[in-house]
Amino acid sequence: MSDKKFVHVVNFWLKKNVSTAQINQFEAGVKSLENVDSIIYFNVGVPADTERLTIDRSYSYSLLTVFKNKAGHDAYQVHPIHLKFADENKMLWEKVLIYDSETI
Amino acid sequence: MSDKKFVHVVNFWLKKNVSTAQINQFEAGVKSLENVDSIIYFNVGVPADTERLTIDRSYSYSLLTVFKNKAGHDAYQVHPIHLKFADENKMLWEKVLIYDSETI
Repeated sequence: MSDKKFVHVVNFWLKKNVSTAQINQFEAGVKSLENVDSIIYFNVGVPADTERLTIDRSYSYSLLTVFKNKAGHDAYQVHPIHLKFADENKMLWEKVLIYDSETI
Repeated sequence: MSDKKFVHVVNFWLKKNVSTAQINQFEAGVKSLENVDSIIYFNVGVPADTERLTIDRSYSYSLLTVFKNKAGHDAYQVHPIHLKFADENKMLWEKVLIYDSETI
């Protein structure tokens, strides 16, 4: 098994009409993902105020999860906490864009 | 000063005609960025073999840098190691796409 770190970045664009209660639910849900034990580094953020032509600030939330290796990521994908988050919140976003990369 | 973590993800698309020597130069340069002292978490990766409609695998390299706060990021932007990397390698990429996010 390779031990190249596996970086999984997920950018979420929430629907325009989500309520404050739904936003709170989404934020609680996405933060709950930190409890998946194969995650070695975690952050949930919103766009910073940096502005350049090369910076995309159009998303609602950016989730960063890092795993020791691809096996850690694969365990995350089927982890009950992750499945619960996706099931309870997938109706709130209109788009997700994922970047999965492994250490060179 | 806020201590929200600042996550700076930079995806690079290298030009199609770069040589092996130029790729080696780029990889050495992008790895040198880890030496910037305000970085608290770092990775350089290439697209993983995960494939879904929501996963973008079209980029060449994904650089992940995390800072304790925005001030750490701002110091990185003007750090000599970063300026040297950009100056020596900017002719090798055709596109960069950046996601800057701060912890919620």
